[in-house]
Order: sequence, then structure tokens, then C-alpha cells
Amino acid sequence: MEKLLREITILKSTASALNWDQETNAPAAAVEYRAKQLAYLSGRIHELKTSTKFQEGLANLNGPNQRELTHQYERATKLPQDLVLRDSETSTLAKAAWSEARGKDDYTTFAPHLEKLLEIAREKAEHWGYEDEPYDALLSEYERGAKTGEVAELFDSVSGELAEIAAAAVERSKKIPVNFLHGEAPIAAQQILNREVAESLGFDFKAGRIDTTEHPFCTTLGPADVRLTTRYDEQDFTSSLFGVMHETGHGLYEQGLPTEDFHLPSGQAVSLGIHESQSRMWENHVGRSRPFWEKWLPRAQELFPHLRKLELNDFLPAVNRAAYSAIRVEADEATYDLHILLRFKLERALLAGELEVAGVPDAWNETFEKLFGFRPANDAEGCLQDIHWSMGGLGYFATYSLGNINSAQLFNAALSDDAVSLAFSKADFLPLLKWMQREVHAHGSSLFPQDLMKSATGSMTNPEAYLKHLRSRFC
Amino acid sequence: MEKLLREITILKSTASALNWDQETNAPAAAVEYRAKQLAYLSGRIHELKTSTKFQEGLANLNGPNQRELTHQYERATKLPQDLVLRDSETSTLAKAAWSEARGKDDYTTFAPHLEKLLEIAREKAEHWGYEDEPYDALLSEYERGAKTGEVAELFDSVSGELAEIAAAAVERSKKIPVNFLHGEAPIAAQQILNREVAESLGFDFKAGRIDTTEHPFCTTLGPADVRLTTRYDEQDFTSSLFGVMHETGHGLYEQGLPTEDFHLPSGQAVSLGIHESQSRMWENHVGRSRPFWEKWLPRAQELFPHLRKLELNDFLPAVNRAAYSAIRVEADEATYDLHILLRFKLERALLAGELEVAGVPDAWNETFEKLFGFRPANDAEGCLQDIHWSMGGLGYFATYSLGNINSAQLFNAALSDDAVSLAFSKADFLPLLKWMQREVHAHGSSLFPQDLMKSATGSMTNPEAYLKHLRSRFC
Repeated sequence: MEKLLREITILKSTASALNWDQETNAPAAAVEYRAKQLAYLSGRIHELKTSTKFQEGLANLNGPNQRELTHQYERATKLPQDLVLRDSETSTLAKAAWSEARGKDDYTTFAPHLEKLLEIAREKAEHWGYEDEPYDALLSEYERGAKTGEVAELFDSVSGELAEIAAAAVERSKKIPVNFLHGEAPIAAQQILNREVAESLGFDFKAGRIDTTEHPFCTTLGPADVRLTTRYDEQDFTSSLFGVMHETGHGLYEQGLPTEDFHLPSGQAVSLGIHESQSRMWENHVGRSRPFWEKWLPRAQELFPHLRKLELNDFLPAVNRAAYSAIRVEADEATYDLHILLRFKLERALLAGELEVAGVPDAWNETFEKLFGFRPANDAEGCLQDIHWSMGGLGYFATYSLGNINSAQLFNAALSDDAVSLAFSKADFLPLLKWMQREVHAHGSSLFPQDLMKSATGSMTNPEAYLKHLRSRFC
Repeated sequence: MEKLLREITILKSTASALNWDQETNAPAAAVEYRAKQLAYLSGRIHELKTSTKFQEGLANLNGPNQRELTHQYERATKLPQDLVLRDSETSTLAKAAWSEARGKDDYTTFAPHLEKLLEIAREKAEHWGYEDEPYDALLSEYERGAKTGEVAELFDSVSGELAEIAAAAVERSKKIPVNFLHGEAPIAAQQILNREVAESLGFDFKAGRIDTTEHPFCTTLGPADVRLTTRYDEQDFTSSLFGVMHETGHGLYEQGLPTEDFHLPSGQAVSLGIHESQSRMWENHVGRSRPFWEKWLPRAQELFPHLRKLELNDFLPAVNRAAYSAIRVEADEATYDLHILLRFKLERALLAGELEVAGVPDAWNETFEKLFGFRPANDAEGCLQDIHWSMGGLGYFATYSLGNINSAQLFNAALSDDAVSLAFSKADFLPLLKWMQREVHAHGSSLFPQDLMKSATGSMTNPEAYLKHLRSRFC
């Protein structure tokens, strides 16, 4: 079993390397053959993960690794071969259709594909099984053990307050000048700052690197090989910096996992909601804090002359300003979750059959207006903006807000340690990292996400710390 | 069989992608796991290439593909499993020992490894079989169908004249001023020129790219994905330019192979001696010619201000100067083959048991002195300079000089076509590329290298054109 698991991990990490190369380097015409290489690898992985040898090997394991691999084996083998194929073909076509639909702002180009994707999602949920509603089965692909009803309850309990905070933050931000942030920021200078910051947070560049892509991401190519990417705005250095801090958060989690268990669940990240807690913590709780900028504003001023006369007290509000945007990926900390509440509500209704595919644009715009007070200019900036559904990623969005809530809760728990807190106030973030390594990273997938939260913070995911943080930052 | 061959090709090209990434991007600590990924892929490739299914599939093929794949199958299956393992382990250790030995200039650190490598090479030769001498079996790993005796005869027939030409070239070059070539050459400006030149020669950047590595190379990651690398001297732009033209030569061959046969010998390069003919032709016959610089010197002068006052008649001799060097990879066109004659003579003697491993440094230095008129300063700059033997690459060196000879012969044949020749004189090299595509690239491995030479030029590899070229350039 050991050998088989190592083989699967080699194939998976090889696929990650090919994917990384495709996003960062591969010439345009290479894409066609690259797709064949990737399809071959994922086919082979599926073959091995559903083999009799794998099933037999499960008996030789014990504890959380047995539990998690049995779960993975069951999920993989419960799907009939023709459904797996249909799933892959449908999402390939849907992704192309989505891209076209968004380009020409025409929802009807995408709608029939969404219909098929929904049907497949429902079939998968039936094969996988669920307790309360089909959405449970999809959600737990990303957030092990999560129940839709509980997530909905959590989101319902905070939605009013999140909307209030967002409104207050947006209102207050109107008085915050921001134009002084803008000024010539050559990419080479941004790269120096980004690297120094990532290194000071503990990112190990002997086992990682940063590259440039249109859509930033973090991926792992081996137990000592974590790749981050970012994009640059040559007029605003904070865009790539906060992006890099976000991806560094993901990267620190990956670098903090037990290396020797790289081929086992105990050496792998537990869920998207926990992964996102790390990226959001380094981006927002550290990156937009006063201690961070007490240390780093002087360095930024050396690199970007237009900032030289700036006071910290003017700078800080500017990197914590809020504004309503139709686009999720442009949203700030104060308004981000509203975008998620909207998507979670809609996809749950779609799956439950309470919302028709044809009704999505209207439902989107109405709900959006209630949350944001205005309507998106069109569907391209509305219900067609995200790639997730077109890839069959129903159930994914919820993990973004879970990540935000977890980030504050974990940060709060870490700071209740006096040594972490004292160091933080002096812009020494390594004790914070050590706390996360011990309480979060070291566990891999040995604990369920909610048990991890309980063990690290004393309670399951709970919005108290998050709301308190947002209020103190924005109200 | 089709499916099996496509699978093998996917695995091989995936390994190429991982190797490319390791040379260009991978962080230092990633190397250990990358070695595991690569070992897994090559193990799997070997497994498939020696499988019963492969053997049975051979019957479904015909023509040159059947011939070549049968040859490959026989070579792979003739080696006992324990020899393959011993080979791989020995060369891994030998590579490390060689690196250490070169670093501290201590041949005795490497000698016991070379002893083992030789023994393995002899065993392999016995398993593979040969007609005249064991070296035949090794040589044909790189140069299909080549006979050691014939190569030795060819080299013997030219060695005297090559030495005379080299001596004359070195003597004449003493009077050629070169210091004006040196001057500030920012990497960004070099990259612009290199790309423009490679593009104008026909290299397709939609299906390829250029990166930076310490040791330049060309590798193929897919039927539309050819990667070149180079290194930069910020004081001498010609170093990276000729390097890029060399690798572009390899790359044009790869891009010229029949794409639809990517998984078959008919879509793959035929030998190292033919591959090198392409790189050396674009580097030396095109890149150091008058028509080339009539077109490109003005562009170089735009990019590198220190060249602005330079006349073509002063510039040309400077890029065609010659000097004796102890180091092969620094050698110019006039002296390069002397380095190869030395290595070919020594490794043939080693394999035949006529030279003891312990005697290599003395034999090297004596032969070197006869050829170059001086002795290397030490073994690090002498018999320890090349990585090839440490990788078990006995039989490889000969292909460099075969490549040089072939390059002149093919170039000469192409230029005997009036349209090619006229275009060449106007620095339009596309007709030359088209000739090479038709006469060389399109054949893949369908013809043996010597049959390819005969079909393209009317005779097998023959030094006449090469010697004529060298005499006219250097004497």
C-alpha cells in the first residue's frame, strides 16, 4: 500500500508540475498535447485509486489515514465509469461555453451547459449519498464533514451584520483618500518587496518560488516545492503585495505539512476552508495591520519614491478602504462575504430544484441588489463572472467565507498567547507562524476541519472573532 | 500498439517537462523528490518498452517504424534487470564523484567509478552484441548503424589537416583585434536580438520558448513545445547569440519533424550526429557568415551602442577568430574537433582494454600536447572537464565531430540549389530551412543516418565539404 500511495502521489505531483508549467510558461500551441498528458495522468491516478490493490491495502492502514483513504476510495468507486467520463467531457465543453458566454455577455450560451452540470452534480450526490440534502455530498468534496444546513445556519446568523458592516465601511471609506497610493511601481521593485515580505513571514525560497500569471494561485509540486504566482499593477504596488501575502499563506500551510507523510492524508491539507483561513490571515490580519506597516512602510518608501512623504496614519486607512464592486475577485475584506452569501444561496437553490437554470440571472441580480444596493451592469459582471460552476465546482464557494471566519478565529486564539501577541506588536510574525504550524499545519488531514478548529481554538467555526475583527477595523 | 506507443511518448515527454523545470525553475530543495518522480517515469517507460504487449505489437507495424522499434525492444530486453539497476546506481554515484573530483582537481576520486562504468559498458556491449569491437555497440546508441572502425578511419583521414587548419587559424587570429566586441550588453537587449534572430530563422515561438540555464540545451516537451536555453555574458552579446543559434538549430529540427508521428520513430530525430549537424549549421555556416551579418550587424548596433562605429569588415574576422583552449565547451570552430579526436581515441582505447583507467590523465595530457602544443593546467581542466563519462555516456563524443562534418556537407548540398544560394546571399535563410525540412527533418528516423546523408547529399558522411569550409574560413 505504501508503494501504491507513493506512486499515486508521484503522479499527482507530476500533474501539478505540468499544470504549473501550462499556466506560467508553456507556449500557446503546446496546450493541446499538454491536455493529453494531463488526461493520461488523471486517468492513471483514478485507475490506481479504484484498484483492488488499493482496496486491499486499506486494511494495512489505521487511524486517520485509513479513515480518509477509505472515504476517498468509496467516493471514487461509487461513481459509475460512464458518469466520470460524462462529468469530464461536460465540464470541458462547459468551460469553453462559459468563457464564450462571458465574453459576449450572453447567459443563454452557458445555460444548457449549466443544466447538464447540475444534473451530473445531482447524480454524483445520489451515488455518494447524503444525510439531509444533495448539496451535502458536494460540499464535503471541499470541506470534509461539513453539513449544508449548519453552514447555512452560520451564514444566516451573520448575513445581517455583515451587510451592516459592509455598508458602514463603504460609507466611511468615501472620506479616505487613496490616490496617493498610486504611482510608478516598476515590477522589479515590487518583486523585491514581495520576496522580502514573503521571506520574513517564513516562506522558504529554497523550497519554493514566485512567478507571474493572470490568475494568481499556489500549487505544490513536491514535499519541498511550493510555487506561488501573482500579477502586477504597475501603478499600485499593494495589489501584488497583498496577492503574494495571500498565496504565501497558502504556501506556508503547504510548507508546514509533515513532509515525511507527503503521500498520506496526514501530510496533506485538510480542507479548502482551512486552507483559505491561512491565506486570509496572512493577507488581512497580518498584511493590513498597523505593526506590519510600521515595519514595512519605510521599506516600501525606499522602493517607491512616490510614497516618501506619506505618514503611517494616512497610509493604513487607505489599505483598509472598502467599496462595493460587482466583481468578487476585486472585493475588499469588508464586502467579500456578501458575494459568497449570494452564490451559496443560489447554488443551493439550484441543486434543490427551487431555482431554474433560466432564472439564474434574475435571481442573481435581485439578491445582489438587496445585498449591495445596486445591480450589476450585465451578466458578464453578474452571474457569468466566476469560472467555478463551469468546472463543475458546485459547493466550492462556501469555503471562502468559512476561510474568512476561521482566519479570525485562529488568529484570535494565537494572539491570546502572550508571546505571540507581544511579538506581533513588534512585527515579528514568526511566533504566529509557529503557532499555526503546531495547531493547524502539523495535523495534515488527521482531524476533521471542525475538530481541528476545536482543538486549536476551543470551539468549532464560530463567527464571533470575525465579526469583532471586522467591526473594529471598519466601524 | 498505437495506444501503447502514445502512452510511452506521454511518459517520456512528461519526464522532459520535469527535467526542463528542474534546470530552469525548480528551487534547490525540490531536487530530491524530483529525482523520485523521474525515476518512477523512467521505470514505467522501461516496463512498457519491454512488455510482452510491446513485443506482440511489433507485428502490427511495418517499414522503418517496425525496424526501429524492434531494435529498441531488443536492446532494452537484452539487458538483464540487475545490470540496468547497477547501471543507474553506478552512474548516479559516479556523477556525484565526478563533480567532487573536478571541484578539487583529484582524478583518484573519480577513477574507481570510471572503472565500474567501463565494466558496465563492456557488459552492455556483450549483451547487445557487435560485429568488430565492443565500442560499436555503444556508439550505435547515439548514431544508429555507425561502425567504430569507419568513424576511426574518417577521423584519422582528417586529423592531420584539422590540426594544420587549427594551427593556421590560431596563428592568424593573433592579429585580429577583438576587444571592440566587448561592451555593456544588457541581458534584456540580448534577449530582444536573440528572439528576433531565432524567429527570422524560422523558429516558431507559438510552439517554443527560450530560457536561461547554466548549461544551454534544447528539449522537446510535446509535438508543439520545444524549449531552448542559453546563458548570458553581459560584456559579450555574441556568446548568447551563437548559443541561441546553435540551440535554434536543434529546435528547428525538432519543429520540422512530422508532428502526427510524434509517438513513432518516423516522427523522431534520427541520431545525435544528424541533430548536431543542424545546430552547427545554423550556428557556424549561417551565424558566422557575411550575409548574416550584413543583415544583423545594423540591428546589433541599434541595441548595443558600443558597436556603432564598427565596420562589417572588422566585425566578421572577430566572430571567426580562433584560439587554443584546454576546455572543449569554450572551443571555437577551428579547434573544436581536436578535442573530440582526443576523447574518441581515449575512450576507444579504454574500452578495448588498451588503456588503464589509472593511465587516463597521462594519456590525456600527452595526446593533448601533441594536438594543441601545450598541456592542461590540471586534470580539472583536462580529463575531468566533461560530464559525459560519469553519466555512462561512452560513445557519445564522436557524434560532435560527425555533426560538424555533416553540417558542412548538408549546407553545401543545399547551397548547390541556386534558389537556396541566391536567397542565402541576401540573408534570406528560409529556403535553406525548407531544404533541411524536406531533406532531413521530414524523414524522422525512417532512414539510417548514413542513408539520410546519401539521400540528401549524394554521398555518405564525407569530410570534403567540411575541410574546404574550414580552409576557406581560416586559412
